[in-house]
Amino acid sequence: MWQVAVCGPGECTPQEAEAARDVGRLLAGRGVVVLCGGYGGVMAAAAAGAREAGGVVVGVLSGRDRAGASSDLTVALPTGLGEARNVLIVRAADAVVVVGGSWGTLSELALARRGGTPVITLGGWRILDAEGRPVPGPVAAAGPAEAVRLALAAAERARPLRP
Amino acid sequence: MWQVAVCGPGECTPQEAEAARDVGRLLAGRGVVVLCGGYGGVMAAAAAGAREAGGVVVGVLSGRDRAGASSDLTVALPTGLGEARNVLIVRAADAVVVVGGSWGTLSELALARRGGTPVITLGGWRILDAEGRPVPGPVAAAGPAEAVRLALAAAERARPLRP
Amino acid sequence: MWQVAVCGPGECTPQEAEAARDVGRLLAGRGVVVLCGGYGGVMAAAAAGAREAGGVVVGVLSGRDRAGASSDLTVALPTGLGEARNVLIVRAADAVVVVGGSWGTLSELALARRGGTPVITLGGWRILDAEGRPVPGPVAAAGPAEAVRLALAAAERARPLRP
Amino acid sequence: MWQVAVCGPGECTPQEAEAARDVGRLLAGRGVVVLCGGYGGVMAAAAAGAREAGGVVVGVLSGRDRAGASSDLTVALPTGLGEARNVLIVRAADAVVVVGGSWGTLSELALARRGGTPVITLGGWRILDAEGRPVPGPVAAAGPAEAVRLALAAAERARPLRP
Repeated sequence: MWQVAVCGPGECTPQEAEAARDVGRLLAGRGVVVLCGGYGGVMAAAAAGAREAGGVVVGVLSGRDRAGASSDLTVALPTGLGEARNVLIVRAADAVVVVGGSWGTLSELALARRGGTPVITLGGWRILDAEGRPVPGPVAAAGPAEAVRLALAAAERARPLRP
Repeated sequence: MWQVAVCGPGECTPQEAEAARDVGRLLAGRGVVVLCGGYGGVMAAAAAGAREAGGVVVGVLSGRDRAGASSDLTVALPTGLGEARNVLIVRAADAVVVVGGSWGTLSELALARRGGTPVITLGGWRILDAEGRPVPGPVAAAGPAEAVRLALAAAERARPLRP
Repeated sequence: MWQVAVCGPGECTPQEAEAARDVGRLLAGRGVVVLCGGYGGVMAAAAAGAREAGGVVVGVLSGRDRAGASSDLTVALPTGLGEARNVLIVRAADAVVVVGGSWGTLSELALARRGGTPVITLGGWRILDAEGRPVPGPVAAAGPAEAVRLALAAAERARPLRP
Repeated sequence: MWQVAVCGPGECTPQEAEAARDVGRLLAGRGVVVLCGGYGGVMAAAAAGAREAGGVVVGVLSGRDRAGASSDLTVALPTGLGEARNVLIVRAADAVVVVGGSWGTLSELALARRGGTPVITLGGWRILDAEGRPVPGPVAAAGPAEAVRLALAAAERARPLRP
């Protein structure tokens, strides 16, 4: 089955939390494993949504232990790697949904694109090239349902599931 | 819930595979999440055992993608970190059960002890200090059932589950 | 002594290469250790500049061996970590100079800011928040000499050298 | 030029420190870059020896900053990776000299052998297989001079220097 990461800031707006929760719930409802950073904000909201739908959600933690981890995780993976764990979240994902913006979130978006993993965005920061044009790659969605639809379509292109 | 890693060589004897399968099945039967390296040999046997018991088993892969991963994994995490992923397997575990010996397996045992994670061994390599005495730390079990019992007792001491 | 990373794409314009070479030379001429990703483009140009000035330049490689590494490195560190090595380059730096833009470069910029490391930019991509305003943090320089001056001033604030 | 890692416990005997210092000095005197973990004990002694000989010595630190790093390092690389940095030390080395024993040191020895890097030992722990025979791979040296000679011969076989 597919694995989709939901990335976003550890402190977020209520609107971002609601969007992340919807994304987590919709993904888990489709049987998709949800990956996230395992802490608060967008990460916790995605985990809560996935759990509501009875799905499997994995938190890849930067710390050496479970301190601060969301209680909605099926599996908490303390890595002790600090921010290097951002690489793991997107490496293990068939697609990444980004909700909101922060430096850590931007690093995940950039690492995903660097590695060829599809990225769908719901709001958040924008990236322009030296001429002021949007850098191609990330695909903006209008809402959680569209984000999930686009993420699964991209995952299917990247790694078709066998029947 | 606890998470216990089962570590061992990617090529193993039938006896080691049977032991690893028993360990995986017994752990998952207790509701414990099983962690492993995600490939063949002892790793695949532990994953198969966990799946038989209907449990959750996570494979932390050294490669950038799922190539060569066991099909019994609930979650496959390609890390692209090479052998540095050995650190992650034992860091995320409340206890480690080692089945058999290899250089990679020894690195996991040593990293677990370095970080204070309890280690239970079923056969495998032995470590002597400069005076020829066994280095204290790893605890030898007589069989899979005892290994699981010792691992859960050690995990309980290391991280008591709240009622 | 300080350590400053020079980050930029593995394929770059002649102007970017010239700027990176100037930055490497000016840093090494001040006795600063230069860190980079160790391969081509901006990385190789920074290494060449540092070597011209007789300095120490460390290449933190993504690969498992030295294949493709610049021949101007004082020390080549194959990590086998893939893109997770981007974290190491900026973590070990007192300041980061970014020359040009790419997804890998953006991940380094974002990881540096996430960890509080000062970032000076020479051209490259721009980052806007959801309202279209530049995200504060990175400081744009007009040329290599100003980039080096700003980087060393930022490094001094971040980690004052003892007399 | 070659790069050789010197690995050993952060707390060591005076004899181990003297041996590590000799190894560092002899390596640096041959123009070899010395790699180590960058902290105390065997690591600090190897760094001091390399510095005495006017060589380049790189400390690959587990921490996020330079706290506790030896003052004899040419380059200090804070990785923030915790014990995962052990992988980096041996991955970047053409050969590894092990002085003394500890769990961290054993992990480095095992990771080096897992990756095919030659290992020379000066004292330290011994590894026996299930039948009680020494596991082949590590080569014991009688003293620092022999350790350096064996390490460079092994490095030459692994990665011949171009004339």
